[in-house]
Amino acid sequence: MEIIELKTTRRVELIELTNRVQQIVQRVKVKNGVCFLFVPHTTAGIIINENADPSVKHDISDTLNKLIPHSADYAHGEGNADSHIKSSILGNCLHIFIEENRLCLGKWQGVFFVEGDGPRKRQVWIKILG
Amino acid sequence: MEIIELKTTRRVELIELTNRVQQIVQRVKVKNGVCFLFVPHTTAGIIINENADPSVKHDISDTLNKLIPHSADYAHGEGNADSHIKSSILGNCLHIFIEENRLCLGKWQGVFFVEGDGPRKRQVWIKILG
Amino acid sequence: MEIIELKTTRRVELIELTNRVQQIVQRVKVKNGVCFLFVPHTTAGIIINENADPSVKHDISDTLNKLIPHSADYAHGEGNADSHIKSSILGNCLHIFIEENRLCLGKWQGVFFVEGDGPRKRQVWIKILG
Repeated sequence: MEIIELKTTRRVELIELTNRVQQIVQRVKVKNGVCFLFVPHTTAGIIINENADPSVKHDISDTLNKLIPHSADYAHGEGNADSHIKSSILGNCLHIFIEENRLCLGKWQGVFFVEGDGPRKRQVWIKILG
Repeated sequence: MEIIELKTTRRVELIELTNRVQQIVQRVKVKNGVCFLFVPHTTAGIIINENADPSVKHDISDTLNKLIPHSADYAHGEGNADSHIKSSILGNCLHIFIEENRLCLGKWQGVFFVEGDGPRKRQVWIKILG
Repeated sequence: MEIIELKTTRRVELIELTNRVQQIVQRVKVKNGVCFLFVPHTTAGIIINENADPSVKHDISDTLNKLIPHSADYAHGEGNADSHIKSSILGNCLHIFIEENRLCLGKWQGVFFVEGDGPRKRQVWIKILG
């Protein structure tokens, strides 16, 4: 298992990880296969979305904040109930194909870690099957 | 393929399955690999979230019920249109890494079956690749 | 990697792909394994849901449109911010088990490509591990 370590700086934030995942794929030297990503946290998620216009990141976090506000009538007492809910709506795992030792992504796609309750030290776990 | 059988008791409910998945991983004896989970139902989902404070489960189902109410102006006539929508928002499949014959989960993570239209008899299907 | 090519005809639309995925599984001749699907677009998604009553498709797209409207106070200027957000809420990848050269799906399940910003030419990428 490979581990990407990251530090988030805000409460809600999307951090692009595409190159760091690609570097692991190249190091592991599985020429063709599937790269699996897994976030071991319950208040964060991982998504693939547009990697060109940064306003897309803003719209994703802003719309999620409107649908699932930070403060509402939640039972969980730690002030991060919204982050747990967002984590399960976005999901904490995904896969990307590998061909010729490279991630297969669409033209506009990038991989984003979605911080929901930062700032924190976080990890993304990676495993590759050939 | 391995099958977990479960019985839900309420219309909307999160049921923790972590130990049952772990037992299958130990029985199958794949030391290192990826465990894939799949829910073969269209009104249920599967997520990974906090396994410590049970109020997180309550907040997830309560917030989903507010965003996607049981009764609204739906076309589907069986009274469970909301459950179909929730199923696709949460997702019906996920993966967990296996190392040394154990599921790799973060400190606070557990696996939850999300019933959306119970009570019913349900299944979770599991396959492991090494 | 196998590719399904499709043409969507409306802005938001669910297109059933179950048989096309099954045809690929049969051609690839992996008897037992896991079939991975991946959407290489940032304004579309892929889900598994009910394949019997077409009103379920309508309720899914209609409810998503209500929660995440086409026009709102978005930063992204291309008129498809909602489609990017929906893509990450539904997800762009999933897996289905294969046994005896057939997709393992529940009785009511089908695979649906979810167009969020059509009409467009789209692809679904498929890889199978045995």
